[in-house]
Amino acid sequence: MPGTQSAAMTLLLPAGSATDPNGQSGSATVLSDLVLRGAGSRNSRQLTDHLDSLGLQRSNSVGVFHTRFSAAAVGPRVLDGLPTYADIVRRAHLPEDGFTAARDLALQALAGIDDEPRQKLLIKLREQYLPWPYGRNSMGSPKDVAELRLDQMRADYAARYNARGAILAIAGNVDVQAWKSAIETHFGDLPAGAEEKITKRPPPGSFLHEEQQSEQTHIGVAYASIPETDPEYYVARMAVEILSGGMSGRLFTEVREKRGLCYSVSAGYSSLKDQGSIVCYAGTSNDRAQATLDCLVGELYRLEAGVAHAELERAKIGLKSSTIMQGESTSSRCGAIAHDWWMRGRLRTLDEIKAAIDAVTVDRVNAYLKKNKPGPFTTVIVGPKALTMPTPPLS
Amino acid sequence: MPGTQSAAMTLLLPAGSATDPNGQSGSATVLSDLVLRGAGSRNSRQLTDHLDSLGLQRSNSVGVFHTRFSAAAVGPRVLDGLPTYADIVRRAHLPEDGFTAARDLALQALAGIDDEPRQKLLIKLREQYLPWPYGRNSMGSPKDVAELRLDQMRADYAARYNARGAILAIAGNVDVQAWKSAIETHFGDLPAGAEEKITKRPPPGSFLHEEQQSEQTHIGVAYASIPETDPEYYVARMAVEILSGGMSGRLFTEVREKRGLCYSVSAGYSSLKDQGSIVCYAGTSNDRAQATLDCLVGELYRLEAGVAHAELERAKIGLKSSTIMQGESTSSRCGAIAHDWWMRGRLRTLDEIKAAIDAVTVDRVNAYLKKNKPGPFTTVIVGPKALTMPTPPLS
Repeated sequence: MPGTQSAAMTLLLPAGSATDPNGQSGSATVLSDLVLRGAGSRNSRQLTDHLDSLGLQRSNSVGVFHTRFSAAAVGPRVLDGLPTYADIVRRAHLPEDGFTAARDLALQALAGIDDEPRQKLLIKLREQYLPWPYGRNSMGSPKDVAELRLDQMRADYAARYNARGAILAIAGNVDVQAWKSAIETHFGDLPAGAEEKITKRPPPGSFLHEEQQSEQTHIGVAYASIPETDPEYYVARMAVEILSGGMSGRLFTEVREKRGLCYSVSAGYSSLKDQGSIVCYAGTSNDRAQATLDCLVGELYRLEAGVAHAELERAKIGLKSSTIMQGESTSSRCGAIAHDWWMRGRLRTLDEIKAAIDAVTVDRVNAYLKKNKPGPFTTVIVGPKALTMPTPPLS
Repeated sequence: MPGTQSAAMTLLLPAGSATDPNGQSGSATVLSDLVLRGAGSRNSRQLTDHLDSLGLQRSNSVGVFHTRFSAAAVGPRVLDGLPTYADIVRRAHLPEDGFTAARDLALQALAGIDDEPRQKLLIKLREQYLPWPYGRNSMGSPKDVAELRLDQMRADYAARYNARGAILAIAGNVDVQAWKSAIETHFGDLPAGAEEKITKRPPPGSFLHEEQQSEQTHIGVAYASIPETDPEYYVARMAVEILSGGMSGRLFTEVREKRGLCYSVSAGYSSLKDQGSIVCYAGTSNDRAQATLDCLVGELYRLEAGVAHAELERAKIGLKSSTIMQGESTSSRCGAIAHDWWMRGRLRTLDEIKAAIDAVTVDRVNAYLKKNKPGPFTTVIVGPKALTMPTPPLS
């Protein structure tokens, strides 16, 4: 990325919520905090001080398949931080007092979900919609987290913080040869570890009302789409952009602008490796909740009738525009190439993405939408009253 | 910004919450939605479609002094959008149906605050801490917004969408001459409008407990600092960074890492033109709330004892690192130069900011902290139980 002074690093380790040991959901999340509480020659405080002294802006999170550590700073400083990330991955102390604090914070975060109805909705929707264990809350269940023990954490660290499927991505102001050599030195002999088999169970249900005495009703609707690796991916993606990209998206225009039904509405595409999904969200006042759900689902059914040339053109320009802007941020670009490697086993240039968007035509979108009618839907409502799913239109 | 394809534009208009007409709080917020519902030759739908067809990622918001419109896209497209922003500022239709929808959405957003205790806390803290009308909630009061009338909106649009104190900032891939000429064409004869005098009233109080049956207690503590234009600004700012910058910040280390008291804690500096503020926030479980408040305020008092060389060095590197990274984003850079122009009447280069940070020494920070003891504090608690402010240490 010419012209950048900064660099970003993304490290994905094969410790995601889907492979948390049975009865130990939340293990990867607690571990992602615990490993930072001392590693290699540094105790917890020294480790934090050292990474801050490099100016590294960093974050860690747990997804379905990976634990992610990200760091960004002025280019050379990110490379300076690499040996410490090797300590974190390979030589974490996992101390008793740090474990107690990390587990307590995880329990507090879980208790806090009740104060965040939107977050609660999205967690419940994933649980209902995705096959187990993909849909598990990465924060774990309160019961499992409360019962976690340090010896289990240590075993889990040994089992999952290793090289099989791990990905290290860098972007920005980087000296590629220096990075290659440092990665070889610090991670070259990281053991692969044993492959973990995931046995899926079907998702629990298609409708859930989680009663909550709130001012607003939060609505989530999810349904299956093609995976991101499908040759028709950008065709499917364009339909979602027409639904919810920019401010001229159908949902925003119909639900929010025309009818004033709610203050927040969106649809997005997301993908596990072999399963794509469309996830829709709306937050609205309780008395408008049913009308909002009717309107939202109505727009999903209306997709089958096809899209217009002008709205496809707008959606293409919008997606290309945001691709270019994300491509100028070292952190975004680094996240995108890590994702590409995981999803496709190769990197795509921005030009390749742009060409794939340009190749989408109205005919391809409309043929896709005729063949792939939205549904069946999984619906979750968080709010004082249950709602009724509208029936499909007669065809 | 060499190497960028994108550009960003920030337009600040002199319509902030502080000058919302009496009894019409929230007027600027409703107006910032309403002006997008048709302007110039385009109705609401056409306007949205047109701006999306340029690939403009855009947002609008209302602060104390300004209404802000921001847009970013591939460079030349931002310039293409400028005439439409002139329509929005000068020739908005302000239609009846659009007004009803915009006001309804504003009322819904206000009702939604009860579901967002953290947001509620920050609103209440501003109301308690800042002199009126600076502390007014920019969303308005439910009563005022419900009673807004379209004729008032039209009068307010005429009075406040004008040139006096307006700022237009651009950053990134821009043709400066083309921009200058377009700005002259479209905004050159925008009337200045009448200066609005703000009569301040003292802040209402120093302690508020807003009872809410929530799982977590949300704590806010604010106190005065020097303004951003003070020569000692980066000295004061460094003390805040030592408190809360990076992960080695004192608050994060003491409150979160060592004691596991809460999952979210931070302190930040913010500035009106003539008044700087430190605003601290903590979110914690109800049973740990008092201990969290004690610890938080204890850290504020402990500042007087001074800071160490190593923590100042880390804080300087951290702030320089984030300055460099923000400087690589056209949107961030554009927001920063608009802020500079408003606050200082001139732009600062990244090198100037870096030099100002480098010039801070431990002696300057410690002298500042001895002279400027934190307090008096304004404290707001949102949660089931009131808390007690700890007493200052004996000195």
